[in-house]
Amino acid sequence: MRIGIDAMGGDHAPVVEVQGALAARAVLGPGDRIVLIGPEPLLRKHLPAAGGWEEFIELRHASEVVTMNEAPVEALRSKPDSSLSVLTQMHRDGKLDAAVSAGNTGAFVAAAQMHLRRLRGVHRPGIAVVTPTPHGSVTVCDVGANVSCRPLHLHQYGVMASLYASIVCGVANPRVGLLSIGEEDAKGNELVKKARDLLREEKSIRFIGNVEGRDIFSGACDVVVCDGFVGNVVLKLMEGMGMTMLKGFIEDLRAAMPDHLDTVKKAAGRIMARYDFNEYGGAPLLGVGGICIICHGASSAVGIQNAVRVAREFASRRLNASITSMLSGREKVAHA
Amino acid sequence: MRIGIDAMGGDHAPVVEVQGALAARAVLGPGDRIVLIGPEPLLRKHLPAAGGWEEFIELRHASEVVTMNEAPVEALRSKPDSSLSVLTQMHRDGKLDAAVSAGNTGAFVAAAQMHLRRLRGVHRPGIAVVTPTPHGSVTVCDVGANVSCRPLHLHQYGVMASLYASIVCGVANPRVGLLSIGEEDAKGNELVKKARDLLREEKSIRFIGNVEGRDIFSGACDVVVCDGFVGNVVLKLMEGMGMTMLKGFIEDLRAAMPDHLDTVKKAAGRIMARYDFNEYGGAPLLGVGGICIICHGASSAVGIQNAVRVAREFASRRLNASITSMLSGREKVAHA
Repeated sequence: MRIGIDAMGGDHAPVVEVQGALAARAVLGPGDRIVLIGPEPLLRKHLPAAGGWEEFIELRHASEVVTMNEAPVEALRSKPDSSLSVLTQMHRDGKLDAAVSAGNTGAFVAAAQMHLRRLRGVHRPGIAVVTPTPHGSVTVCDVGANVSCRPLHLHQYGVMASLYASIVCGVANPRVGLLSIGEEDAKGNELVKKARDLLREEKSIRFIGNVEGRDIFSGACDVVVCDGFVGNVVLKLMEGMGMTMLKGFIEDLRAAMPDHLDTVKKAAGRIMARYDFNEYGGAPLLGVGGICIICHGASSAVGIQNAVRVAREFASRRLNASITSMLSGREKVAHA
Repeated sequence: MRIGIDAMGGDHAPVVEVQGALAARAVLGPGDRIVLIGPEPLLRKHLPAAGGWEEFIELRHASEVVTMNEAPVEALRSKPDSSLSVLTQMHRDGKLDAAVSAGNTGAFVAAAQMHLRRLRGVHRPGIAVVTPTPHGSVTVCDVGANVSCRPLHLHQYGVMASLYASIVCGVANPRVGLLSIGEEDAKGNELVKKARDLLREEKSIRFIGNVEGRDIFSGACDVVVCDGFVGNVVLKLMEGMGMTMLKGFIEDLRAAMPDHLDTVKKAAGRIMARYDFNEYGGAPLLGVGGICIICHGASSAVGIQNAVRVAREFASRRLNASITSMLSGREKVAHA
């Protein structure tokens, strides 16, 4: 298996990408290779001078870089030799089995749609994030690929994220909830009300109806379906709130038990790790004709390493074939 | 001042409502009175037999109850003598200066619009929740009154919540952010993009542009504007995530330092109180011709007591006059 990494993507590129590629050796199978894409002289500067890395890492030169705040489509058009464009084009040409980037998410989604196309039957790709909770992981989809959802899109996110949760994450018969503002059918906006009807008719998934914001952490469901605007707000809120609350608690405890700073620090470290996005290694873009793993812009080398692990799991379970067989030939609901 | 409480509203009605009314004595001014509304025999049963409460509490009989999951408008129509209907009608008739309920939020909003009407110039009322953060309180509006927002509604939430934050919460020149999925102008859905243009032109507020989910806790802004669907998801997510994370951390620490359970418990209690909705006492419904304070369904007596405090502050600062003077006669933006 050959896994490509956009070496120029994240906030700390190419340092963490190169370190992540080196660390990825631990999660590669025999014969697997990493392809690092970016300005070759720069990448060589960050790779060990003593060598050894050539055994599992290849370099592919790309001279340009899409930055974080560029408008996606314009950036891809004006920079045909960007590391991100080269990544998805190599994947399209069969030179890679999966693509990993911590760069501009919008540009990655656009490049994936442009070069890899959507899977047959899929109307809009969605980003699925696996969120740790005390009751197990919860897969939230979409968290930002599609901010103008139609009911059909939410229906397809339910199907695709349910397949991901069961096939890749190993959750048996995942419970799928639709994110709304109350359990009752009457609650929600027009989009959610129409999507609920479609999801309820969908026999291939275990749809449990509406869930609320608090249910992401209550153990009520394994998959949460929402539009990309709401999902992105939720994702960033969880990140910001988690860090803020933990910091407050730790400060409180440090003041209360100055003799036990070490224990407090260790407990804090454990819970931080439990909620650390790096442990989960990146979010798959579901519904495109390839395997694209989107990493947090602030990913560490561990985050990149884990994204490679996620990419391998995604590829080895043949998820895309399952999505296509489930969603193609379903034109009867396409009007929704 | 006379403050009415729907004694049959919350999950633990009328117990916490009666206890909250008794506790509210501590926050009342000289001559202020509480009017408890509900089935009088039941209320008397929960009031101290020894008396004394008559000095500041009056009872107003109402024979019916709107339950939590009833459809709002239908419930109000079929139950004209519900405690909630009587509450808002008494307020309309000038027999109350403010109304407090922990009951069915949708029904409270509907009853307020039906009996108190909207303030001149206001197109849709919005619920404002004051959220504690380490950087001070943040006012989020709307959190559930209006799930089908137009850009003009978000614009008005910005103006009303900014006035609330400054006049009632005492935040000088509050920074108003529009909840979106990135700071850049290009980020967001159509609603947010159009609302941003209106907010940017609004000279009466200090609009700082888009904010993200994480910014609610980052200290970036004092007011967050969003539609009622997103705001309600955010509100319930904060509630569920806060409790879940704290519980996890406390369990971890208990296991790590069994000799210091007391200290851990005390620190946990302090931080729980910091994030406890009861401390904030209820969310004002902004934009109606009266003062309606919406309490969490699971409010404690302290929550009801604090809602009375919030109602008094709202009434004494003449916020509604400020909202009207700011928003009436602004028909030029009414098309948005």
